[in-house]
Amino acid sequence: MTYCVGLRLDSGIVFMADTRTNSGVDNISTVKKIHTWCSPGDRVITLMTAGNLATTQTLVSLLDERSMLPSKRDPSILTEPTMFQVARLVGSTLREIIEGQRESCSQAAAASFNATLILGGQISSMDHRLFLIYPEGNFIEATVDSPFFQIGETKYGRPILLRGFERDMSVADALKLLMVSFNSTIKTNLSVGLPLDLHVYSRDSLERGIERRFPRNDPYYTAISQTWGSALKNALHSLPDLDFATVPPDA
Amino acid sequence: MTYCVGLRLDSGIVFMADTRTNSGVDNISTVKKIHTWCSPGDRVITLMTAGNLATTQTLVSLLDERSMLPSKRDPSILTEPTMFQVARLVGSTLREIIEGQRESCSQAAAASFNATLILGGQISSMDHRLFLIYPEGNFIEATVDSPFFQIGETKYGRPILLRGFERDMSVADALKLLMVSFNSTIKTNLSVGLPLDLHVYSRDSLERGIERRFPRNDPYYTAISQTWGSALKNALHSLPDLDFATVPPDA
Repeated sequence: MTYCVGLRLDSGIVFMADTRTNSGVDNISTVKKIHTWCSPGDRVITLMTAGNLATTQTLVSLLDERSMLPSKRDPSILTEPTMFQVARLVGSTLREIIEGQRESCSQAAAASFNATLILGGQISSMDHRLFLIYPEGNFIEATVDSPFFQIGETKYGRPILLRGFERDMSVADALKLLMVSFNSTIKTNLSVGLPLDLHVYSRDSLERGIERRFPRNDPYYTAISQTWGSALKNALHSLPDLDFATVPPDA
Repeated sequence: MTYCVGLRLDSGIVFMADTRTNSGVDNISTVKKIHTWCSPGDRVITLMTAGNLATTQTLVSLLDERSMLPSKRDPSILTEPTMFQVARLVGSTLREIIEGQRESCSQAAAASFNATLILGGQISSMDHRLFLIYPEGNFIEATVDSPFFQIGETKYGRPILLRGFERDMSVADALKLLMVSFNSTIKTNLSVGLPLDLHVYSRDSLERGIERRFPRNDPYYTAISQTWGSALKNALHSLPDLDFATVPPDA
């Protein structure tokens, strides 16, 4: 599977993705799922991918070619005027790839070509924006009410995000939150695994932010995993006891 | 959906189940999913059910009839000699119900008759045991390595169980753990909802233990939900900060 999270903070966007790809538990490998295109001073665009690896690699290659070759730069994610138009371009490219693969195959296998994306970034003086793009090519945008997106194995790591996320939190706190969310997921689903990739985009910087890989046995990840275990137990012990005596059984 | 958890402690078994049943989000109601049969001094058997409501209600009615009418008491969960034999009887009864419904319907609808069960209890001087029963009628038993079972919407509430569960924890601590696990699930999945039903079986008591319903707006549930939110935030803040400067970006 995969686990990717994009958090839209007031101060920027934090992206984190695992790197495990698998076709069956007996065939796993490591693949980068976070991709950044940057035209310094003009725009930074980061994409995270979950789903069929052939689909997502083709998507990234197509976006790459169109952004690198001047002759193909129309349309390109480096020339679209707004993040909304970038999301439309990425969404339509994704849909074309999936439909192309479907046409050459039987209906039965069609669902397995699907992919889901998180796209975020900023263009010149406009707001930084974050999108979730579906295999159909349509998309939704992060708002004040739902300020983060997850793709892949989203359930195990979701409760802590709902509890801990605040728009005005620092990048350091956001990183702790993501580390815990990924740790919960990695402990419960073998198809999500280290290394983890991080990109922290700072609002209005219009250049690549902190990019970092947390490898297997990363000391920070290990420290978080261990301290979180004891912090959670302390939190549990701090909860009030139920007084079984005072409340009627059928309250 | 449904969420039920059975924890096998050294001191007994704690069962908790939600009560929401739904067919679509526009059709929800409240149903008891936890059922206890008791022959004081001889045995206590508790069953929790997830899945098709027609299937699980039929199952409970059949087990009830066989345990109440002396003429039908062979086989009955009140006469089987061991918990293992009780699990076999419940499993085969479940499979028969599902197969009976499948036969009278098209194959397409067959999957929707499924149900999954958690069964636990104790018979005379034998160990207290906990089983997870599949729609096929076969089952697995809780062991030292996997000492609890979840059915229904299992993912949101699983990380805290993995982190917090200890075989020798007190019933009060186990209840806190379950409350948090249910709270995480209820906050993220509309098809799991209050009231919550609890049964705490005390090892070697051979009688019904504490049975309790936590209704909507239950003060203890509300207190747990609120204090857990702040306890989690404190736990997050207690985690170490990453020093971005000292570790190379491609460590």
